[in-house]
Amino acid sequence: MKKIKILLSAALMAAAAQVSAQYSSTPPEVSPMPMKPEMTEIWEPEVPVVTPGKKLGDAPSDAIILFDGSNLDQWVSSKDPSQPAPWTIVGDHMEVKPGSGDIKTKMKFGDCQLHLEFSAPDKVESVSQGRGNSGVFFQDRYELQVLDSYQNRTYRNGQAGSIYKDHAPLVNPMRDPLSWNVYDVVYTAPRFGTDGQVDYPARITVFLNGVLVQNNVSITGITEYIGLHMYPPAHGDDVIHLQDHGNKTQFRNIWIRPL
Amino acid sequence: MKKIKILLSAALMAAAAQVSAQYSSTPPEVSPMPMKPEMTEIWEPEVPVVTPGKKLGDAPSDAIILFDGSNLDQWVSSKDPSQPAPWTIVGDHMEVKPGSGDIKTKMKFGDCQLHLEFSAPDKVESVSQGRGNSGVFFQDRYELQVLDSYQNRTYRNGQAGSIYKDHAPLVNPMRDPLSWNVYDVVYTAPRFGTDGQVDYPARITVFLNGVLVQNNVSITGITEYIGLHMYPPAHGDDVIHLQDHGNKTQFRNIWIRPL
Amino acid sequence: MKKIKILLSAALMAAAAQVSAQYSSTPPEVSPMPMKPEMTEIWEPEVPVVTPGKKLGDAPSDAIILFDGSNLDQWVSSKDPSQPAPWTIVGDHMEVKPGSGDIKTKMKFGDCQLHLEFSAPDKVESVSQGRGNSGVFFQDRYELQVLDSYQNRTYRNGQAGSIYKDHAPLVNPMRDPLSWNVYDVVYTAPRFGTDGQVDYPARITVFLNGVLVQNNVSITGITEYIGLHMYPPAHGDDVIHLQDHGNKTQFRNIWIRPL
Amino acid sequence: MKKIKILLSAALMAAAAQVSAQYSSTPPEVSPMPMKPEMTEIWEPEVPVVTPGKKLGDAPSDAIILFDGSNLDQWVSSKDPSQPAPWTIVGDHMEVKPGSGDIKTKMKFGDCQLHLEFSAPDKVESVSQGRGNSGVFFQDRYELQVLDSYQNRTYRNGQAGSIYKDHAPLVNPMRDPLSWNVYDVVYTAPRFGTDGQVDYPARITVFLNGVLVQNNVSITGITEYIGLHMYPPAHGDDVIHLQDHGNKTQFRNIWIRPL
Repeated sequence: MKKIKILLSAALMAAAAQVSAQYSSTPPEVSPMPMKPEMTEIWEPEVPVVTPGKKLGDAPSDAIILFDGSNLDQWVSSKDPSQPAPWTIVGDHMEVKPGSGDIKTKMKFGDCQLHLEFSAPDKVESVSQGRGNSGVFFQDRYELQVLDSYQNRTYRNGQAGSIYKDHAPLVNPMRDPLSWNVYDVVYTAPRFGTDGQVDYPARITVFLNGVLVQNNVSITGITEYIGLHMYPPAHGDDVIHLQDHGNKTQFRNIWIRPL
Repeated sequence: MKKIKILLSAALMAAAAQVSAQYSSTPPEVSPMPMKPEMTEIWEPEVPVVTPGKKLGDAPSDAIILFDGSNLDQWVSSKDPSQPAPWTIVGDHMEVKPGSGDIKTKMKFGDCQLHLEFSAPDKVESVSQGRGNSGVFFQDRYELQVLDSYQNRTYRNGQAGSIYKDHAPLVNPMRDPLSWNVYDVVYTAPRFGTDGQVDYPARITVFLNGVLVQNNVSITGITEYIGLHMYPPAHGDDVIHLQDHGNKTQFRNIWIRPL
Repeated sequence: MKKIKILLSAALMAAAAQVSAQYSSTPPEVSPMPMKPEMTEIWEPEVPVVTPGKKLGDAPSDAIILFDGSNLDQWVSSKDPSQPAPWTIVGDHMEVKPGSGDIKTKMKFGDCQLHLEFSAPDKVESVSQGRGNSGVFFQDRYELQVLDSYQNRTYRNGQAGSIYKDHAPLVNPMRDPLSWNVYDVVYTAPRFGTDGQVDYPARITVFLNGVLVQNNVSITGITEYIGLHMYPPAHGDDVIHLQDHGNKTQFRNIWIRPL
Repeated sequence: MKKIKILLSAALMAAAAQVSAQYSSTPPEVSPMPMKPEMTEIWEPEVPVVTPGKKLGDAPSDAIILFDGSNLDQWVSSKDPSQPAPWTIVGDHMEVKPGSGDIKTKMKFGDCQLHLEFSAPDKVESVSQGRGNSGVFFQDRYELQVLDSYQNRTYRNGQAGSIYKDHAPLVNPMRDPLSWNVYDVVYTAPRFGTDGQVDYPARITVFLNGVLVQNNVSITGITEYIGLHMYPPAHGDDVIHLQDHGNKTQFRNIWIRPL
């Protein structure tokens, strides 16, 4: 409860009379005061230069080459990380060796731009999820589905370009099993609070064969084949892994730019 | 370049013939398969219990009391943190001692719910920014303006309820200088990447006297009297400080809940 | 393919020599050029004045009073909107009449600030979801759960303060069944694209008894007792409805501010 | 104030005794109840098929071709929309005709994926903003800068890949003036409320030569050469315009997919 009682409007008039030049209550005619062009120029720090790839899809100068066809040195077995990646190199690409298990990068990543090309097995067998099934897991947990979705109906949130059982792709721009498909991905890792709970979910933008299929969608949680997706406790950067789902899916030209 | 040439539609028919029961390409009649209600019930972990304040505005059981009228023990001088807060306690409230400088909490905070009550000086002097000017700085950097905005025109992004020179309030629900105003704030700290740059800006929701004035707006950067607001390099939790802007602004009933 | 071949560095030197005063490639010493304080003051349009309620929880001057204890004139039966709301007025509050069905507002709302007080039935019967169950549905579709969650364990995403089967509350600040609880809500309606699909999900901030329980969470979709929540096709503003779940839950002091 | 006083814990015990089988307050051992895999499969509606371009950068089957080198039929003069676009076609590309003014599309767009290739004038003249300056304006208002930023220092928020005077690019992956640069853009239009004010700002993701330079940044407002950027009143889809900034900047292979 305030003790001093004043007549407010009188006080205001008094205030107006004694006001110094320091403050003005009259709005300027132009609002806000005009600037000069240079005032919204920001020069520092200089933006770092990167040499782009020769053509679209080629690795730029600051990319880490995860696979260029020559060897699997950047990968290990997911089952036993002390062992080399058990998949096969065929020509310029690698091929899943069914039953050998997933493979994963030696390096760990968080936010990144990833380029990866994949092709379904040349021999088309089975249907739906049985055809050319694999997957790219970001931070070892969040799956961008790999599937032969060319003329192959399955559930929309499980086809190529989907965040598996989370977000269906906007469109289906798949090529046939004898052609190569291209993923260009911008992945933003989830942020966790000091309490170990997720603060900001992971986000992902995906182009499949140059066509936008995911536009900065929020990933709901860790990928699960069964049940609701929820965030695991806080985790840091982690490996990218490629899934052995029993099909001879092929991969080539994989590079990544940590962001 | 793929070597094996197959007639795709033939291959698909063959595939359809040999498909096991494992995968179905026929969409189920109901999609997705019906669940049971219990499948979307999440029981663990139990939500922690908090005892609310007796009436709105009273501190709940998990709040840290920053000021209850009895002392300034939670505060120190901003100029010299080894010194006690130099402001004055008058009855149940504290009052800015003009010229003594800002005061700040001993504790540091990040995400939080803050309750704070303020009143303009009883004697109305000056106009615009000269009237009852003070401020609440979250993480020592981002200012929620405190001003006597009762019948006192100033720039819209500088009046009470504004994020100073960043976001004007939605409305102006100020009480007269002899009454107490109430801020209820939800502040979400900015998140920074490992490169020290801001990933997600700070966000703030503000009620002034129970009326929404900021709805989860993104704070553009560190508060500046002059020029563009930009994010400083990465920082952690930090003090809340109250500004000495030369006016005898009063504060009472300040409590905070780290989130 | 470009035809003209030039030696680029030579060209650049030449360019630098002939450059007029119009453009400078030398960064200014101070970047950006210093502004004046007035340049970041925005005066127009003036922020509209609202008279706040006398104390926290009271309706401000721009609120629509949905229920003040005197009558149910702002409400109709959900079953048959041509009929008056079939619930009972007892003293200063209304009480669910079990079996009579839900009630809904005559007016439609989108983004809004809502204040609503509720109390569990005085006689405590049953447990879990059977105790004081009701709900507030925004835009007739998205439910903020009402339940007697005082010393009453249930699934975390179904207790008071939850967005039903979507988001558990941060904490449980419920009062006992003989006391009144207060919801203060900021609801942001979903935005739909011209294709009828959701662009931006609904968001909600909820205080229960002055304690934050939901901080601008995104609502996943239309509330469902069974199964996944998804967004319905595009819709506009719609009624707020209160649920008859078979318990004599009480409501009072309901007001709303369209935002 | 409630009238009926009961001893709550006694009431709860009574309640527990009389509880029917309808509700359980005992958490299930597994939470939530296990689902079947099919329950999180969503089949409908089927994702639409798009035929991708033959190689990256080629238009997919659902794109609108804005320029393929043959004519300027999709464009008009910005100064006088009743007149054809006054720029020049040279070989497979168009070239700005300095002084003739901006050109704009006949069609209007909102959310879109845009592909556009540009090249700086073959003869390098001037420095900083004077070199190969042009721009792509989304919805006629929000500029993605076009500039010859190859070995050409300027302010970071004004170089190629910047949202002009809003967001500097993450990196600078420009090619030399004799080569073609490629923009791949995902643009999300701002959403406006019924009050005509912006609800959700525009967002943009930009790749320059296949390298991410903007990751879903929020556009602060209408592009201004001088002063702060703010949102204009509500507007709908609008033209894309290309700027005549006095330099003979070249464009080719422009296509767009409304999203």
